[in-house]
Amino acid sequence: MEASNYSHPYVPRELVLPDFTPGFLSQFTILGVFGIASFLVITSSWIVSGRFPKLSKIERSLMCWWAFTGLTHIILEGYFAFSPHFYKDKSAHFLAEVWKEYSKGDSRYAGRDSGVVSVEGITAVIEGPACLLTVYAIAKKASYRDVLQIAISLGQLYGTAVYFITSFLEGDNFASSPYYYYLYYVFMNSFWVWIPTLIVIRSWKRICTAFQAEAQSKKKRKTF
Amino acid sequence: MEASNYSHPYVPRELVLPDFTPGFLSQFTILGVFGIASFLVITSSWIVSGRFPKLSKIERSLMCWWAFTGLTHIILEGYFAFSPHFYKDKSAHFLAEVWKEYSKGDSRYAGRDSGVVSVEGITAVIEGPACLLTVYAIAKKASYRDVLQIAISLGQLYGTAVYFITSFLEGDNFASSPYYYYLYYVFMNSFWVWIPTLIVIRSWKRICTAFQAEAQSKKKRKTF
Repeated sequence: MEASNYSHPYVPRELVLPDFTPGFLSQFTILGVFGIASFLVITSSWIVSGRFPKLSKIERSLMCWWAFTGLTHIILEGYFAFSPHFYKDKSAHFLAEVWKEYSKGDSRYAGRDSGVVSVEGITAVIEGPACLLTVYAIAKKASYRDVLQIAISLGQLYGTAVYFITSFLEGDNFASSPYYYYLYYVFMNSFWVWIPTLIVIRSWKRICTAFQAEAQSKKKRKTF
Repeated sequence: MEASNYSHPYVPRELVLPDFTPGFLSQFTILGVFGIASFLVITSSWIVSGRFPKLSKIERSLMCWWAFTGLTHIILEGYFAFSPHFYKDKSAHFLAEVWKEYSKGDSRYAGRDSGVVSVEGITAVIEGPACLLTVYAIAKKASYRDVLQIAISLGQLYGTAVYFITSFLEGDNFASSPYYYYLYYVFMNSFWVWIPTLIVIRSWKRICTAFQAEAQSKKKRKTF
């Protein structure tokens, strides 16, 4: 094994990453750009959602979430899923920088763990576009808007479960320090636990209500 | 590495399984017992479903499927998820025999691949009991019966996708022979692709219809 194999900041130290190139951008820059881009997506989604009639504030907030999470899935996670060599990138490509940075919280990204790649691939290719469809579905009050939200949210929860359980089974030792562990691995992923959970509960209730209303109206028709 | 490490029938040959104990039952016996048990579960579910009023043949068939797949998840997959040493079993425990046999189609089971264990754990602990709840929900025409079926079916599809994609990413070389590959890995798993897909389509349509009916009746109320 060459000495250069250890020239990366990730844990476990034995991880072999030939031709690893250190990140060019600071954590502040990377998180700043991501934060500003997210803010712009959410703000513009909020403004656009206001142009559709009869949408509640919850529905408009949901449109913001689906636009944000959909673009995150497609752009950030899509780049990762199809860029096995991002850690060698010498061009300071922003998305490569993101994953070089995130790998400090979970080196399985740089290490190309098959479980992580599978989950990210499914998320980017199937869930990402479906999220953007949800933005449209809520705006148009489509009859499939709640089942679509449940489908994607459960997919996000399933993916996050696989993500955490595989790490646990493999010893949960993929973070460069507790700081990165809690900031990236725990805190950032937690949004894809509690938000999908709330959405599943809301849409589940709404679907049950729709079935009760349907059953009620069938009964009425029979009575008359 | 000791010579005994290679005393198993699985591929890749380098897989290390200390204290591996060969299966005691023949393939015919294992598949026969599974087949008869499945037949009994499906037949008795069909008979029981006939005692509930106003269930269509499709609904009764779905009850059979959910009873069969739920018990498979809980008993077979539940045993696997929590028995990391099944391949050492010397007691001819039927469930250990099942997984010793199935590992010929996918050695990641004997090898305790974290992706496979995660998916099987989620399937056994969450989806299994939810399947049995579905049998009840269909029998009672509960308002959550379709969203529950979609939730579990999408979980099964997500799990199967992770299962196949991780194997593909790791080289798809886990079967002892093409016979086991196609019979166990491809054919047997295919049931958890096409059946959940059909159920998702059916329940998706039914949920949309319920929302359309609800919207319609709200409109009517406003008209009067």
